[in-house]
Amino acid sequence: MKFNYPNGKPSTTYHGGKSAKKQATSNQRLASFSNRGMTFEHALNLSNDYYLKKGVAVVHKKPTPIQIVQVDYPKRSAAVIKEAYFREASTTDYNGVYRGHYLDFEAKETKNKTSFPLKNFHEHQIVHMKNCLAQRGLVFVLLWFASLHRCFFLDAKHLCHYWDCQADTRKSIPLKELEEIGLEVSVGYAPRIHYLSAIDSYYFKGE
Amino acid sequence: MKFNYPNGKPSTTYHGGKSAKKQATSNQRLASFSNRGMTFEHALNLSNDYYLKKGVAVVHKKPTPIQIVQVDYPKRSAAVIKEAYFREASTTDYNGVYRGHYLDFEAKETKNKTSFPLKNFHEHQIVHMKNCLAQRGLVFVLLWFASLHRCFFLDAKHLCHYWDCQADTRKSIPLKELEEIGLEVSVGYAPRIHYLSAIDSYYFKGE
Repeated sequence: MKFNYPNGKPSTTYHGGKSAKKQATSNQRLASFSNRGMTFEHALNLSNDYYLKKGVAVVHKKPTPIQIVQVDYPKRSAAVIKEAYFREASTTDYNGVYRGHYLDFEAKETKNKTSFPLKNFHEHQIVHMKNCLAQRGLVFVLLWFASLHRCFFLDAKHLCHYWDCQADTRKSIPLKELEEIGLEVSVGYAPRIHYLSAIDSYYFKGE
Repeated sequence: MKFNYPNGKPSTTYHGGKSAKKQATSNQRLASFSNRGMTFEHALNLSNDYYLKKGVAVVHKKPTPIQIVQVDYPKRSAAVIKEAYFREASTTDYNGVYRGHYLDFEAKETKNKTSFPLKNFHEHQIVHMKNCLAQRGLVFVLLWFASLHRCFFLDAKHLCHYWDCQADTRKSIPLKELEEIGLEVSVGYAPRIHYLSAIDSYYFKGE
């Protein structure tokens, strides 16, 4: 699959462990949306918009679940929610469809430089990911190392393994291990977080 | 696929045009969750809970999108949203994964007895369904005739056809046509709206 980039450059593919250092430098120079005050979440939403417009995938972030307590209905204007509370989501934040497959993922970030803390995830998210894996969905996480400007794709089955095995001991995934079992996602202009490239490499290699 | 029903009865499969009248009577006698003050949406959510617990599918209703304007953070208690507005959803209400496939659907109801008005749908929902169809998702609608206690499954491609062809003329799908091109979904106790049975019949017949 080829994307036409506004800057005329071809789509870069994922970078595994070997070229990881090179890719890190490239990411810092190239994009660094975070340097321009853009959050990882916003960059991801823009990437999904890009995929949608190009007709390559339909992925949306789910709205935050809210418990509504009181609503006013003023005359001649829209209903106003006057009292409501944030509820805990029972699923991951993102899902959608790509090449006939169900995609489901969570995106998290850390300021750490050497490992990704598992405290970023909640038990119910792990349960949801396991349920989706059992239904043969493509389930994964996107991990953003904000200080390093590096993004990793990790199959949810690996995350669940770390979650289940670590109990109360280490509780984080070392960057070095991520470089081995994950895929580094290229960070650029459009799409900013080109995670579908990692999906292609990981699930559809050789197709 | 077999479900064990609490009442000991086996899962009923979908009913097409020929046995539609018989099924309607059966539905009225059997369940009629609406007679017990339960909404179609609630019955559907219970069905999704049932599927999740049985490990046969992971389908969730998306939260209503809310535009938050003002949040208070009282000491020693949860954040309170003091001003917020309902936003229009850009997708359908339900999606998930079943047997490796992406499911995406919208559920609507009418009090009409002879046809289903298309005004129940919005342009952006039709656009979203077309996008998901293009990605080879299993996209459909569940149409509930509240006065008749009958529920129909309809492939979104048929809905889109009606939507595109009717322009400003008829603007509804006659029940008789639904009995031909849709599938009637059995309404029971657990799951209340057994739409996966229609999915099996429609997409996986003979598997």
